[in-house]
Amino acid sequence: MRVAIFIGSISDEEKMRPASKVLTSLGIDHLFTVTSAHRTPERTERLIRECEDAGCQVFICAAGLAAHLAGAVSARTLKPVIGVPLSTSGSALGGLDAMLATVQMPPGYPVATVALDVTGAKNAAWLAASILALADPELATRIRASREGFVRDVETAASKLGQS
Amino acid sequence: MRVAIFIGSISDEEKMRPASKVLTSLGIDHLFTVTSAHRTPERTERLIRECEDAGCQVFICAAGLAAHLAGAVSARTLKPVIGVPLSTSGSALGGLDAMLATVQMPPGYPVATVALDVTGAKNAAWLAASILALADPELATRIRASREGFVRDVETAASKLGQS
Amino acid sequence: MRVAIFIGSISDEEKMRPASKVLTSLGIDHLFTVTSAHRTPERTERLIRECEDAGCQVFICAAGLAAHLAGAVSARTLKPVIGVPLSTSGSALGGLDAMLATVQMPPGYPVATVALDVTGAKNAAWLAASILALADPELATRIRASREGFVRDVETAASKLGQS
Amino acid sequence: MRVAIFIGSISDEEKMRPASKVLTSLGIDHLFTVTSAHRTPERTERLIRECEDAGCQVFICAAGLAAHLAGAVSARTLKPVIGVPLSTSGSALGGLDAMLATVQMPPGYPVATVALDVTGAKNAAWLAASILALADPELATRIRASREGFVRDVETAASKLGQS
Amino acid sequence: MRVAIFIGSISDEEKMRPASKVLTSLGIDHLFTVTSAHRTPERTERLIRECEDAGCQVFICAAGLAAHLAGAVSARTLKPVIGVPLSTSGSALGGLDAMLATVQMPPGYPVATVALDVTGAKNAAWLAASILALADPELATRIRASREGFVRDVETAASKLGQS
Amino acid sequence: MRVAIFIGSISDEEKMRPASKVLTSLGIDHLFTVTSAHRTPERTERLIRECEDAGCQVFICAAGLAAHLAGAVSARTLKPVIGVPLSTSGSALGGLDAMLATVQMPPGYPVATVALDVTGAKNAAWLAASILALADPELATRIRASREGFVRDVETAASKLGQS
Amino acid sequence: MRVAIFIGSISDEEKMRPASKVLTSLGIDHLFTVTSAHRTPERTERLIRECEDAGCQVFICAAGLAAHLAGAVSARTLKPVIGVPLSTSGSALGGLDAMLATVQMPPGYPVATVALDVTGAKNAAWLAASILALADPELATRIRASREGFVRDVETAASKLGQS
Amino acid sequence: MRVAIFIGSISDEEKMRPASKVLTSLGIDHLFTVTSAHRTPERTERLIRECEDAGCQVFICAAGLAAHLAGAVSARTLKPVIGVPLSTSGSALGGLDAMLATVQMPPGYPVATVALDVTGAKNAAWLAASILALADPELATRIRASREGFVRDVETAASKLGQS
Repeated sequence: MRVAIFIGSISDEEKMRPASKVLTSLGIDHLFTVTSAHRTPERTERLIRECEDAGCQVFICAAGLAAHLAGAVSARTLKPVIGVPLSTSGSALGGLDAMLATVQMPPGYPVATVALDVTGAKNAAWLAASILALADPELATRIRASREGFVRDVETAASKLGQS
Repeated sequence: MRVAIFIGSISDEEKMRPASKVLTSLGIDHLFTVTSAHRTPERTERLIRECEDAGCQVFICAAGLAAHLAGAVSARTLKPVIGVPLSTSGSALGGLDAMLATVQMPPGYPVATVALDVTGAKNAAWLAASILALADPELATRIRASREGFVRDVETAASKLGQS
Repeated sequence: MRVAIFIGSISDEEKMRPASKVLTSLGIDHLFTVTSAHRTPERTERLIRECEDAGCQVFICAAGLAAHLAGAVSARTLKPVIGVPLSTSGSALGGLDAMLATVQMPPGYPVATVALDVTGAKNAAWLAASILALADPELATRIRASREGFVRDVETAASKLGQS
Repeated sequence: MRVAIFIGSISDEEKMRPASKVLTSLGIDHLFTVTSAHRTPERTERLIRECEDAGCQVFICAAGLAAHLAGAVSARTLKPVIGVPLSTSGSALGGLDAMLATVQMPPGYPVATVALDVTGAKNAAWLAASILALADPELATRIRASREGFVRDVETAASKLGQS
Repeated sequence: MRVAIFIGSISDEEKMRPASKVLTSLGIDHLFTVTSAHRTPERTERLIRECEDAGCQVFICAAGLAAHLAGAVSARTLKPVIGVPLSTSGSALGGLDAMLATVQMPPGYPVATVALDVTGAKNAAWLAASILALADPELATRIRASREGFVRDVETAASKLGQS
Repeated sequence: MRVAIFIGSISDEEKMRPASKVLTSLGIDHLFTVTSAHRTPERTERLIRECEDAGCQVFICAAGLAAHLAGAVSARTLKPVIGVPLSTSGSALGGLDAMLATVQMPPGYPVATVALDVTGAKNAAWLAASILALADPELATRIRASREGFVRDVETAASKLGQS
Repeated sequence: MRVAIFIGSISDEEKMRPASKVLTSLGIDHLFTVTSAHRTPERTERLIRECEDAGCQVFICAAGLAAHLAGAVSARTLKPVIGVPLSTSGSALGGLDAMLATVQMPPGYPVATVALDVTGAKNAAWLAASILALADPELATRIRASREGFVRDVETAASKLGQS
Repeated sequence: MRVAIFIGSISDEEKMRPASKVLTSLGIDHLFTVTSAHRTPERTERLIRECEDAGCQVFICAAGLAAHLAGAVSARTLKPVIGVPLSTSGSALGGLDAMLATVQMPPGYPVATVALDVTGAKNAAWLAASILALADPELATRIRASREGFVRDVETAASKLGQS
C-alpha cells in the first residue's frame, strides 16, 4: 500500500471515490476506508500506525464542516498529508469553511490542501502520484501520458466546435 | 478545580485572560494552561483526564485558524465543552474561519461556541458559570448581582448623556 | 420538564424536531413550542417564567434571519441558553447571518451556539444532555453508550468498504 | 421631541453623534440616549412608551454584533424604526453581521436599515427628516437647501481640480 | 396614489407582488410599474415627477445585481425611498451584493433598506404603511389589528404543537 | 475575424454561447473555440498569434475556478482582453472566486471583467462591440438601435402591468 | 481629449491619480474631474455630452460603496466605460461591494471592471490605452516598451536576490 | 538544488523569506528567486526547465491577487508544486481570493496549497521537507527532532503560566 485514503464519514464515499479511481488508473495500490477525528480518534491513530507499517507514503484525508481529520493525521505522522475539504449539506459556507479548517495548520504540521469535493478528490490523487513519481520513473511516464490525453481532449472538443 | 481553560498557543494568553478574570470574580476555581491539538495531542489527552479527576465540570478551549482544540477535547470527554474562536493574524476570514471550525461539530460531540476573542472569552466564563450555577444557588446569586451592575452601568451612562 | 425548546416560527418545526428526538431518546422530559422574539415578546417572557417554575434547567432556542430569540431569552434568564441558527430561505448569507446574530452576544449574556439546522438541532440536545448529566450519572451513562454506538457505526461502515 | 436615538452601548456614542448633529442642523428636536436590548430590556420598553407619549414620530436605533436593538424596538412600536448597524471591534464580519441582524426582520416588523457607522448615522437622520418632512413643508425646504449645498461642494471640488 | 412601487425588470414582478398585496390589504392606493435605472433613465425621472404630482408620499424600488434603482430615485426626490434588494439568478453574492448596492448611499441621499426578496417586499409595504400612519390614525389602527393577528397565529401554531 | 472567444473547457459552451449570439446579431465576425491555460498552454499561445494575424481586435476569455485563462492571454497580447468569470459547480465561492482571479491582474496587464455567466457573456460581447464601434460608425448605429429596443421592452412590460 | 476620468468624490483623488499618471506617461490627453451619480446627476449627464463632443473615446469612472457612477455613465453613452471600484472606509465588504455594484450591469450596458483602488486605477489606464492603441500604432509601440520595462524590473530584482 | 521558491513580485520577499529559513534549518539546498506568471512568462518557463535540470524535486510558488504563478508552474512540470497564497494590499478578500486562485486547479494539475502569508510560507517548507524525507531518512530524523522541540515549547510556556 502506497497511499491511504481516509473519509470522515461513510456519506463522503461518493465524493471521494474518484480519488481511488485515479490512483487505480495509475496503478497505485491504496487503502480506502472511513475513520473520524471525533467519533473514532483511537481508530484513526491505530490506522495511521498500521498504514505506515504497510508502506504507506502519502495520506489523503477528506472531511467536511469542522474538517479536523487531515490535521489530526498530520499531527501524528511525518508523511505528506493531503486534505480534501468537502461541502457537506449544512455547511455554513458551502465548503469554504472546511477548506480553511483543513489548510490553516500551525507551522510544522502542514496539510497539502486541494479544491472542494470531486475536483479536489481527483487532484489529491494526482498530487499523491506526483509525489510518488519522484522515486518512480514509470509512474512519471504514466502521468505524462495522461496529460497528453488531456491535451487531445481539448483539441477534439475544439474540432467539434468547428475550429482546428 | 471546577473549570479548565485551554489555550492552543501561548500567544493567545492576552485574549483569553479575561475569561480567567470573570471566573475569579465569581469565585470559581479554575486551571489556565496551554496545550495544542496538533503539537501536543498526548498532553491534551492527559490534561483532560487529570482535570476530570480533579473535579473539572466544564472545559473552555480557545484556538485560532484551523481551531481544532475544542473539538479534540469534546471527542474525549462527556463534560460540556465551550469553544472560543480567535482571530489570530494570518486568518483568511478574520476569525470567522475559526468560529466555523469550532462550532460545526458532528452530532453527539457538541462544542458550545461563543463570540470571537475577548467578548467570547468573557462569555465563555459567563456560560460556564451559568452551568455551574444550576447546582450552586450562591453562584446564581452572584451572577444576578453582576447583571444588576450591568443595568446600573447603562443607567449611569444615560445620565451622563443628559437623560435619566 | 428539564429542557425547553423554543422555535421562532412554526415553519422551523421540521428542522428542530431532531432536537426533541435526541432528548426523548435520552429520557429527558422537555417542552417543544413556538414563540417569537418579535411577534410575541410578551408570550416569550411569560413562557420563560413558566418553564423555570416547572423546573426547566436549559433553554434551546432556534431562529433564522435576524435570529434574536436566543438572545432575548438569555436576557431574561440565568439558566444556560443554547442557540440553534437556522438557514431559512431568503437568508442573505445562507444561515451564517443567523449564526452571528445568535453567537455575538454582549458580555454577561452568553448564548451557547451550535451549528446550523439539523446538525445544530441534534447537538443542541446533546449539549443540553451533557449539562444535565453533570448532576445525573445515569444520564451520563446513556450518553456514553450512545457514543459507543457511534464508534460501532464507523467500524461497520469501514467493514462494508472492505477493510476492518 | 420628534425623533429618539437609542445607542446600545455608551461606546457607540462617537459613531452616532453625527446623527444627532444632522437632526440639530435641520432644527429637529430629539432625544439621544443609551439603552440595551439585552442588558436593559425593561428600560428599553419604558423609553419607547415615554418617547411616544412625548410625541416621538421616528426611532433611530444603533447597535453592533448581534444588533437586536432596532428589532426589539420595532416589535414594540408602530412608528417607523430606522436601524444603524455598527462595526464594533470583535465583529466576525466587520459590521455586515450587524447589518443583517438589523435588516432581516420578519414580515410586519420592518426596520429601515441604512449603511454602517458614520455614513449610516448621517443617513438615519436624513431619512428621519424625509419622513417628518411629509407633514412639514418648511423642513422639506431645509432639506432641499442642504442638497443644493452638496451640489455646490462637488462643483467647487471640480474647480479646484482645474475643470468647471 | 400614496405609494409607488418600481421594479427594475418585469422578471421581478413575482417577488414584488406581495408588497402590492400588503398595501392593498391595508387600503393604501398605489402604483406598481416597471422602470430601469440603466435601460430607461428618462422614463424613471418622468415617473418620479408624475408620481409626486399625483400625491405619492413613499417610493418602493426593487432591483437585483448592481441594484441602482432605489439610489437613482433617492437622488431625484425628497420623499422617503425604500429599497428592496433582489437575489436574481447570476448574482455573485446571492443578493447580498444587491443589498449593499442599495443601502450604502452617500450622506443626504438615504435609502431605507429592507431584507431580500419576498420578505423584503412585504416589509417595504409595512414600512411604507408605518410612515403613512403617522398622519393617518385609521391606518395605524389597521396595522395594530394585523399585528394582533400575527400574535394569534403564533398561539394557534403553539396549540397545534400541544402546548398553550 | 474581429473578436476571438476562448472558453477554458467544453463544458462552458452553453454559458458562453450567448456572447457569440450577440456578436452575430451585430454582424461581428468572430471565432468561438476552446483552449485551456493549464491543459493546453502551447495551444493558447499559438491561437493568440493566429487570431492576431487574422485581424482579431478583442479577446473574450471565459473560465471558472482558478480562472487563469484571461490573464494568460493578457500576458501575451496588447489587444484588449475581456474576462468572463464562470460559476462552475465545485466553486468554493459560487463564481466570486473566478471573478477575483480574473479581475485582480498586476498593473500593465488589465483584464476588462464583466459579470458572471450568461449576463457576463452577453456584456462581454456588448463591450467588445462598443470597442469596435469606435472605428465603425455603422456598428455604433446598430448598438444604438438595440438600446432603443430595450427601452421599448420596458415600456411594453409596463403597459402589460396596467400603466403607461 | 481622448479619455475622461470621473471620480465620485474629491476624497477619491489620491487613489485615482495613478490612472492619470499612466495616461500622461503614455501621452494620452485626458480630463480628470469629480462628479457624483447621486449628488450631481445633471452635472454627470452634461459632462458626458461635453466629453463626447470633445472627442472622448473611453470613460473611466471610480466610486465606492453603492458605486453607481460607472453604471450611470454606461447608461448614457455608447463609448466603452471602465469602472474602478474603491474600498472607501465604511464599506461593509472592503470594496468587494463596490466591485459588484460596478460589474453586475444588465445586458447591453457593460462596464469593463478592473481591480480595487490603486491597482485598478493603473489598469483602467492601461486598458484605455489598449483600446486606443487599436487605432494608434505609435501608442501600441509605447505600451510594448513599457511591458519590456516590466520584464527588466523582474530580472533586476532577481539579480539582487542573487540569481540571474 | 532540491527545492525552488518562486515569488511573483519582489515585494513578496519578506513574507516568503521564512520558507527559505525553514529549508536552510533542515539543510535543504534551494533556490529563492522572483518570476511572474504575467510579466515574465518566458522567464518562468525557462526557470522551470533549469531547475528540473539542476535536480529540483519540489516547487514552491507564492503570489497574491489573481495568484496564477503556482498554476502556471503546475501546468509545465510533473513535480509536486506547493502554492502559498499571499494577502497583498489591495486584495478584495484579504488573501482568500489568492488562496482560491491557487487551490482550485483543474483535475490533473494539482497545486498543494497551504495557509496565507508567513504561516503558509513556513508550512510550504515543512511540506516540501516531508516529501523529500520519503527518500531521505536523515531528513526525516531532523523533522522529528523539530517536532519534539515544538512539544517542549508548549510545555515550557505552560510552566510559565504556573502549571506543569
